[in-house]
Amino acid sequence: MSEKLYVGVDVGGTTIKVGVCNPEGALLHTYEGPTENEKGAERIMENIAAYAQLSVSQLSRSWDEVEGVGVGIAGFLDIPNGIVVLAPNLNLNNASVKDFLIPRLGKPVLINNDANVAALGEAWGGAGRGVSDCVCYTLGTGVGGGIIINGRIVQGHNAAAGELGHISIVPDLEAIQCGCGKMGCLETVSSATGIIRMAKDAVARGENTTMSLVDNMMAKDVIDAAKAGDEVAARIVNRAAFYLGKSMAVVAVVVNPQRFIIGGGVSKAGEYLFEQIREVFHKYTPSGASKGVEIVPAELGNNAGVVGAAGLFLRG
Amino acid sequence: MSEKLYVGVDVGGTTIKVGVCNPEGALLHTYEGPTENEKGAERIMENIAAYAQLSVSQLSRSWDEVEGVGVGIAGFLDIPNGIVVLAPNLNLNNASVKDFLIPRLGKPVLINNDANVAALGEAWGGAGRGVSDCVCYTLGTGVGGGIIINGRIVQGHNAAAGELGHISIVPDLEAIQCGCGKMGCLETVSSATGIIRMAKDAVARGENTTMSLVDNMMAKDVIDAAKAGDEVAARIVNRAAFYLGKSMAVVAVVVNPQRFIIGGGVSKAGEYLFEQIREVFHKYTPSGASKGVEIVPAELGNNAGVVGAAGLFLRG
Repeated sequence: MSEKLYVGVDVGGTTIKVGVCNPEGALLHTYEGPTENEKGAERIMENIAAYAQLSVSQLSRSWDEVEGVGVGIAGFLDIPNGIVVLAPNLNLNNASVKDFLIPRLGKPVLINNDANVAALGEAWGGAGRGVSDCVCYTLGTGVGGGIIINGRIVQGHNAAAGELGHISIVPDLEAIQCGCGKMGCLETVSSATGIIRMAKDAVARGENTTMSLVDNMMAKDVIDAAKAGDEVAARIVNRAAFYLGKSMAVVAVVVNPQRFIIGGGVSKAGEYLFEQIREVFHKYTPSGASKGVEIVPAELGNNAGVVGAAGLFLRG
Repeated sequence: MSEKLYVGVDVGGTTIKVGVCNPEGALLHTYEGPTENEKGAERIMENIAAYAQLSVSQLSRSWDEVEGVGVGIAGFLDIPNGIVVLAPNLNLNNASVKDFLIPRLGKPVLINNDANVAALGEAWGGAGRGVSDCVCYTLGTGVGGGIIINGRIVQGHNAAAGELGHISIVPDLEAIQCGCGKMGCLETVSSATGIIRMAKDAVARGENTTMSLVDNMMAKDVIDAAKAGDEVAARIVNRAAFYLGKSMAVVAVVVNPQRFIIGGGVSKAGEYLFEQIREVFHKYTPSGASKGVEIVPAELGNNAGVVGAAGLFLRG
């Protein structure tokens, strides 16, 4: 009388996180252990296998009930073959994750990149539950994303679908160069990094702002100053919100999702930020593509990755 | 020893066009007859049924070999129920096309909107043959579009996916209002209508251009003048190409298609236009999302609609 279990693994540079989900995407148990990245690929993969099995046994369930193990990895992946091609922050370059794990676990294994997996997690078990077409933004150091259509991840030709941080949205006249080498990418203005940069530039220019008193500026400082009425900070947050909303207007007529889900540190600014985004979105989106479309905060926080990795078997 | 047949119907205001395809999307036969729009919904639907059967019998094939009949209609549709909700140019408002045709034809019937169906036609049997992820632009009176992912049409929450003409891409400072009511939509600059408008504005301003000698200006006149070295015309075509290329840069990081297919009257400008589009596309698209991506002309012309309608059964 047991229901099936789906195991998701989120491989970070310091910690490997495991989540065990039921077929509806509810998170039943989590486990975390050290990645031991410095000990190399084989040790990392052994840890993935060990922590996955530990998590299921801590839940007092049998490994036989597990349908499969999904693994989310930040990097450039050969998804069909389950190989890590290039992982800038992990000692997994060229590692055949599938080939290593399948015999050890005796279960099917799927891999996918961390941004897609986090998006799927929110779509399947988080803020997108019950909605088949979702687009997820993660506003962190950069701007990550993922596109879920008919409940499934859109990968794209080079697995570059959902790279929402690189939507070229800032017009040339006010654009700066992105880390990717191109001009005007969304993440130059709407990531935490972009917000901090704009704030530091304003302080350096000697603009009249309370932010000039802040040491070691974080995006939260800028948002807090904006909420407290600082006009310079408010202008910066408004600019971040403006281009987010404008990028969603574009996405709305391309794939017309029912729900936009926004997570990551910057999203903690809450309704102050969301209201500005929604206003811009409706200003630039034809009503046919905006009707019934919601822009909502993510729900799963750091658990989105393990839930989405678990979901790869049903929704990948 | 017969292979299955798929029948596609493209319902226009004056003409109903039928195409019969094989399972690979090759067009075996076409038939055209008058819509008789003025005679009302029932007559239009009777004509659809009659022309579909005539086309198959002219091909000397049996109606028994037909797997289904797909119908492309310009308008707002209830696709699952096969009902036309609102068709601005056809007397089909509230017509239950599926319910009417299924008993008459004795075959499954599917309907979809004309832009999606044309995109599917190119993806299945035209310039996208063999490619699973394509994005199609049609540059005509407006700018239409369709998104094909994993070989299938992306409909979106309100069936507004692929409304590429309404990508808000022109910055506010140089934007005008679109017919949809919003500012800066792609079709204000990259449709035939947009190109003609910019040319007429330039002539009205007294700019020094050979286009001032043209009566009843068409987009082709502007393109021909640009190719012949007219600087004012060249600037207008370049602006149309610039925003097309920029919109593709955005689409590339959202769904990362392998191929962009461009059809419609304006696309007949050929390599002169395509080279400008490709240059802008590569300028604004990160290499991960542009690698191996092609921007090519449509192949099926006016037959894209019937081929795509036929393809609804395999790829809708």
